[in-house]
Amino acid sequence: MTSCSHSNSNSESDLIFVADLGGTHLRAATVDRCGRIHYRLKHPTPRAEFPAEIVRALVDAARACERECTSRGEKITAVSVAVPGTVDFEEGVVVKAPNVPCLDGFRLGAALESELEWPAIVENDANAAAIGEMWQGAGRGYRNIVCVTLGTGVGGGIILDGKLWRGVDGSAGEIGHIGVDPFAGVACKCGSRGCLEVYASATAIVRMTREAQPAYPNSVLHMSEDLTSEKIYRAGLAGDELALEVLRRMGMYLGVGLASLVNLLNPEIIVIGGGVASGWDLFEKHMNEQVIERAFALPVKRLKITRAECGDDAGLLGAARLGLTKER
Amino acid sequence: MTSCSHSNSNSESDLIFVADLGGTHLRAATVDRCGRIHYRLKHPTPRAEFPAEIVRALVDAARACERECTSRGEKITAVSVAVPGTVDFEEGVVVKAPNVPCLDGFRLGAALESELEWPAIVENDANAAAIGEMWQGAGRGYRNIVCVTLGTGVGGGIILDGKLWRGVDGSAGEIGHIGVDPFAGVACKCGSRGCLEVYASATAIVRMTREAQPAYPNSVLHMSEDLTSEKIYRAGLAGDELALEVLRRMGMYLGVGLASLVNLLNPEIIVIGGGVASGWDLFEKHMNEQVIERAFALPVKRLKITRAECGDDAGLLGAARLGLTKER
Repeated sequence: MTSCSHSNSNSESDLIFVADLGGTHLRAATVDRCGRIHYRLKHPTPRAEFPAEIVRALVDAARACERECTSRGEKITAVSVAVPGTVDFEEGVVVKAPNVPCLDGFRLGAALESELEWPAIVENDANAAAIGEMWQGAGRGYRNIVCVTLGTGVGGGIILDGKLWRGVDGSAGEIGHIGVDPFAGVACKCGSRGCLEVYASATAIVRMTREAQPAYPNSVLHMSEDLTSEKIYRAGLAGDELALEVLRRMGMYLGVGLASLVNLLNPEIIVIGGGVASGWDLFEKHMNEQVIERAFALPVKRLKITRAECGDDAGLLGAARLGLTKER
Repeated sequence: MTSCSHSNSNSESDLIFVADLGGTHLRAATVDRCGRIHYRLKHPTPRAEFPAEIVRALVDAARACERECTSRGEKITAVSVAVPGTVDFEEGVVVKAPNVPCLDGFRLGAALESELEWPAIVENDANAAAIGEMWQGAGRGYRNIVCVTLGTGVGGGIILDGKLWRGVDGSAGEIGHIGVDPFAGVACKCGSRGCLEVYASATAIVRMTREAQPAYPNSVLHMSEDLTSEKIYRAGLAGDELALEVLRRMGMYLGVGLASLVNLLNPEIIVIGGGVASGWDLFEKHMNEQVIERAFALPVKRLKITRAECGDDAGLLGAARLGLTKER
């Protein structure tokens, strides 16, 4: 662990309570000014009909963390939550969260401030992950970063000149919904067609595997009843041709999308995270080929495309960083 | 003409000399702090082998403008040039200019400062046009603007929070090289395939018209030997089915590209300029249809897509604005 320059400051024992509200799990932690996670917990996300149930789950997690802190002589001074949806950052409002729809339009920041009496931050989870990677991960030392999160869907966060570009409605960074095959492509649940998400998400990898199975009668993946992108990746590592073909295609589409992004934004570094990034060794080459072939030579020359380093903690760490740096 | 709040300041008579160096024409002018063009001239761009010839043409234009100023008791205090290529704005270096290749790597800013003894700015022409539209055109009152210039090629400028986003190498904003049909699409001279530029530029409109001619034997465009996008647009206005089909397709591809851009950047306004924007009435509907169908509802709700207002002066005005506001 690197030494922390804040360790002698007055706020040495001040921690921030952070939560990453996923569609499946609520992960929470306390984090210090140096990005160290002191205590963490993980619960199933409540199947909530009302926002109060989500607030209750967050408050319970915060109180559990607070008890742990108190016993160690530490103090929580703020709360910061990463949410899977569009957020009005300034107002702390969840604008739209397709996987936690009860939060649509809910003033989550105000509700948490009222319950916990700490200043609260609410941020989109992919944006938080981008900040987390800049602070403690693969984006350290860079100020112009695009972070792509390949999970159940494909999310993204854009950091320009050290600052998140959230867009005027908080909905910027939807890298999963760049069109990569807009005419002949697969329909996307967003309403468009051929979005990056329908080729590079975990869901897409499973779908593409099922679609291609007939052409690969000898694939070990025929025996798998509950296909997952992880199983497909492991089969690929073992040389399974079906898995290799699917990850080749996934890498190719990802590269096509990144090429448009590079021509548009000319970033220093693209950080690829999320569960699907586990397949990196099998898709990296195909992704890079497309970027080199399609994007302009000048921005590609400097560009680094690399794997994320913070794993599942990227969102928690980014939420912490945002909470620790926001002016109050 | 609107009144100028600077008209009583000490710098009342201070003007900036600006030039827009096109592949065909060098346009130059003197502009005041209020965005008024005082004097302008237009010459063919020299077919230069050496950067000194370009510098000479710019200096000659500047001296012509200066004589005009002096006779009116005005004074030029700075020079700002818009260049059709990638620029290192901080250093005043032309990095790469495909249509004026002798300038590649040339320190144009330093050369002009040395000859003219005025501080010099060098900016990419599409970036300058975006600033021009924000200052004096369709982008007035907005701070988050994407400006698309549909000319011989397709250029773009991205303004976020009132500032140009130039990218880390000065090559951001290449909206013409977003992939809109990356697999089945037409090869682009950039090396990729299916870029927006091969469907929405003046060159593309002429090409698409020639390609579609056999299916429209009665089109008036068969009689035209030297097809131009302007002729095609005028034929469309008169009801020519071939022209209407080409502008429908052009609008459709433009909308597909803008949808990716909206999902990625969530801007307030998209301003469409350049010669091809003359066809607005014939492609607008098809462009909007794709944006509405493909981009996320939240950013589309606020988004305004509109025609540029500064015409050919956008680059000159933007260059002026940049020269007038850059800290010296």
